[in-house]
Amino acid sequence: MSASGARDGASLLESLRAAMPPGVLLEDEAAAAPLLADHRHLYQGRALAIALPRSTAEVATLLAWCNERRIGVVPQGGNTGYCGGATPDESGMQLLVGLQRMRQVRAVDAANFSLTVEAGCTLAEVQQAAVAADRFFPLELGSAGSCQIGGNLATNAGGLNVLRFGMARALTLGVEAVLADGSVCSHLRALRKDNTGYDLVSLLVGSEGTLGIITAATLRLWPRLRATATAFVAVPDVAAAVALLARLRVAAGERVNSFELLPRSALELALRHIEGLADPLAAAHGWYVLCELSSFTEEPLADLLGQALGDALAAGLATDAALAANERQRAQLWRLRENVPEAQRRAGPSLKHDISVPIAALPGFVAEASAWVRAHVPAGMLVAYGHAGDGNLHFNISFPQETAAGQLAREEPVIRRAIHDLVAAHGGSFSAEHGIGRLKVGELERYAPPGTLAMMRAIKNALDPHGIMNPGKVLAAGGQGGETPGGH
Amino acid sequence: MSASGARDGASLLESLRAAMPPGVLLEDEAAAAPLLADHRHLYQGRALAIALPRSTAEVATLLAWCNERRIGVVPQGGNTGYCGGATPDESGMQLLVGLQRMRQVRAVDAANFSLTVEAGCTLAEVQQAAVAADRFFPLELGSAGSCQIGGNLATNAGGLNVLRFGMARALTLGVEAVLADGSVCSHLRALRKDNTGYDLVSLLVGSEGTLGIITAATLRLWPRLRATATAFVAVPDVAAAVALLARLRVAAGERVNSFELLPRSALELALRHIEGLADPLAAAHGWYVLCELSSFTEEPLADLLGQALGDALAAGLATDAALAANERQRAQLWRLRENVPEAQRRAGPSLKHDISVPIAALPGFVAEASAWVRAHVPAGMLVAYGHAGDGNLHFNISFPQETAAGQLAREEPVIRRAIHDLVAAHGGSFSAEHGIGRLKVGELERYAPPGTLAMMRAIKNALDPHGIMNPGKVLAAGGQGGETPGGH
Repeated sequence: MSASGARDGASLLESLRAAMPPGVLLEDEAAAAPLLADHRHLYQGRALAIALPRSTAEVATLLAWCNERRIGVVPQGGNTGYCGGATPDESGMQLLVGLQRMRQVRAVDAANFSLTVEAGCTLAEVQQAAVAADRFFPLELGSAGSCQIGGNLATNAGGLNVLRFGMARALTLGVEAVLADGSVCSHLRALRKDNTGYDLVSLLVGSEGTLGIITAATLRLWPRLRATATAFVAVPDVAAAVALLARLRVAAGERVNSFELLPRSALELALRHIEGLADPLAAAHGWYVLCELSSFTEEPLADLLGQALGDALAAGLATDAALAANERQRAQLWRLRENVPEAQRRAGPSLKHDISVPIAALPGFVAEASAWVRAHVPAGMLVAYGHAGDGNLHFNISFPQETAAGQLAREEPVIRRAIHDLVAAHGGSFSAEHGIGRLKVGELERYAPPGTLAMMRAIKNALDPHGIMNPGKVLAAGGQGGETPGGH
Repeated sequence: MSASGARDGASLLESLRAAMPPGVLLEDEAAAAPLLADHRHLYQGRALAIALPRSTAEVATLLAWCNERRIGVVPQGGNTGYCGGATPDESGMQLLVGLQRMRQVRAVDAANFSLTVEAGCTLAEVQQAAVAADRFFPLELGSAGSCQIGGNLATNAGGLNVLRFGMARALTLGVEAVLADGSVCSHLRALRKDNTGYDLVSLLVGSEGTLGIITAATLRLWPRLRATATAFVAVPDVAAAVALLARLRVAAGERVNSFELLPRSALELALRHIEGLADPLAAAHGWYVLCELSSFTEEPLADLLGQALGDALAAGLATDAALAANERQRAQLWRLRENVPEAQRRAGPSLKHDISVPIAALPGFVAEASAWVRAHVPAGMLVAYGHAGDGNLHFNISFPQETAAGQLAREEPVIRRAIHDLVAAHGGSFSAEHGIGRLKVGELERYAPPGTLAMMRAIKNALDPHGIMNPGKVLAAGGQGGETPGGH
């Protein structure tokens, strides 16, 4: 099978080379290698070829060629995803299409608070283009320097400013995308209001490359933020954190920009494994909230936050707090939060669960899920942290360095099922911001709300009848009309 | 044809009566009559029957019955739409489904800032349910007392608070909908983050009943507003209004809640035809802006607005301004704006164009389109007013009371083409917030961005293969796979 596959591959590759403009295919194996494995090394793929198109027209040529031959296409941005969505399968018969060469800023319109960029721009480049126009693009991820805006939109990225500004979809006015048959859907209008038919932009954003390849986008901008206030707050428990969030929203309205929850275990991991960090508080506490207010106008946010936290201390919703006195201290507080994933990686293997529940259900869910982990995973240490302001926790379990991969692989399905069943029981989602990719296809089939999976399959089949777009991602290949694209 | 249609109708009606639970069909002709014509009396339809289901299950039974028999289904909310989207055609072979009996508030979750309501609740009832939980639902329309939330979502309604809170889609967390085959898509999760597959909620919102019938929705709530400041500002021209908006956004951030543009002609119409209104300013001016700041916290917004307007006067961006000193004055200023449509109706016939362009393009578009109207429509008076903060103007032309309907009908296509071509030239939309319905199907076919129409048709055919859902609305019936549903 793989031998015949290899033969097919050789002849296909020849005709692909012949059909494409020179320089589109990446022939350098050393440069290709890192593109064939995912960020977390969950998957090691092979590819018929790797194409790095320089224009929307070249993307269209590539897809039309693949669609005629039923060749699976795997789009890739900065390859920073957590669910293997940008990694080709093991057949060696899929075409990997990297957008890294399409990185033009096509237009910046400060008066309209919008800009249009190509998919290969890194998030940092988009942020900088906004700043250069005295504007602000609020999407913020730890990987801003390497992730690409096309991937951010394809996965509807979340991040640190969702509470105030929403996820990537909410920041998108228009997209340009190439569909499976090579046709171009060009919807780059910079309009705040446009009720002309179905919301194709929201459909393409978050479709993880299974409906088309986003080649450019028109994004919303905001005025630059002129004031921030940041505090690291010890809270007695998760219920107190939720109550504190409601108080802050009433006291500060939409100025509440971030509301991140950290258990003591996450803080200790960061302090132990990351150099140059210190506990901002004198004593140890069970839970912490990193909260930040921001404003487009110059106003005394530190006073507002200090007052609100004073009231919270008096009401027993907080037990201690450290308010950043300057930008350096603010950066230090954020380093505590942003280094948790890296600290957890250094501490040893872990199982990750990117879950969300209604904010009011956070205390109940955390209590039940933690009790289950204590009872059934004695070797694991719970590190449940994240964007509590969005009801989103990274409900992760760390294991000792010496834990055998095999043992973890055996335990993972049981642990995942228990945690995701609890999430479902609380009306939550097993994928709050990381998406489905290849990793969670089975979870989507199990937990999708009634009727939605059939709708998704119908849309997929309608827009990609041969199932060539990112086969086996989001929806099982079997859900794509029975075909098995990519020749395997 | 209509005779045979009538015969078919009689037998079909019999079997429908037999198939439905008692009381679902509206048999009272007097009560039926107002449901068969649209709000603007552009269309007078007939119906095989009118069903007023009391539950999602009854809606599912109705649609399954219609789908088997290829009977067209026309969903209707409060019947306040401007494009005939909720009116059956003239065949008398379509089933009108009114949601008015489904008006339960299913759940209110103040801590999660969300509620779940059925489609037949009026917008005012939804707003009141939010207030009762000390929360705020920001969708605001002049028709709040009669329009229904299901229709608001089906048409992705805009209104007076879009600048700050977005359109109906941005306020929606989840929907429950019945699809053409009677299957129920139940996606009522109250989550801020949920990356589990395609955004079906955004697809159903704004699909105008052509993909399914929305039976319930989970909506986002905000804290209650605690401060507002409202001003009626004279500006020298549209360019000054756009510059004033940018200044206000920089000075007040997202507190800028509304930014409505009025020409002198609109103000004079309101003063002449609506009792109890007065010009807030001493002299006459060419253009006015009604702007309002709001805040979730108690803060001196009047000072902030007064300061910003003072700067604008000094910079020549404003020529005079009246700041509301109390709630009564604020209500008076809003009455000036909200009564323009009614005043225009009383003044005589008019041609309406619900357009949007990038905000920075407003001055250029208004100048070119106004010049065209002056040159080509001598009998018409331009009344171009609306939500300038969203780039959305109702670019309307009023005609003298005695104007013959026939003459207007002859001139309308020429005028519409000229104005919509100018809108397209400025990268704008011919339907900013009113939708497509039946009225603008041809415009969508003409102006849809490249590739989008084919995508919409593919999705429509995939989810409604027999084309029974609101046939001929949004997409031409011919675009629904060649079938002509509803037996005509």
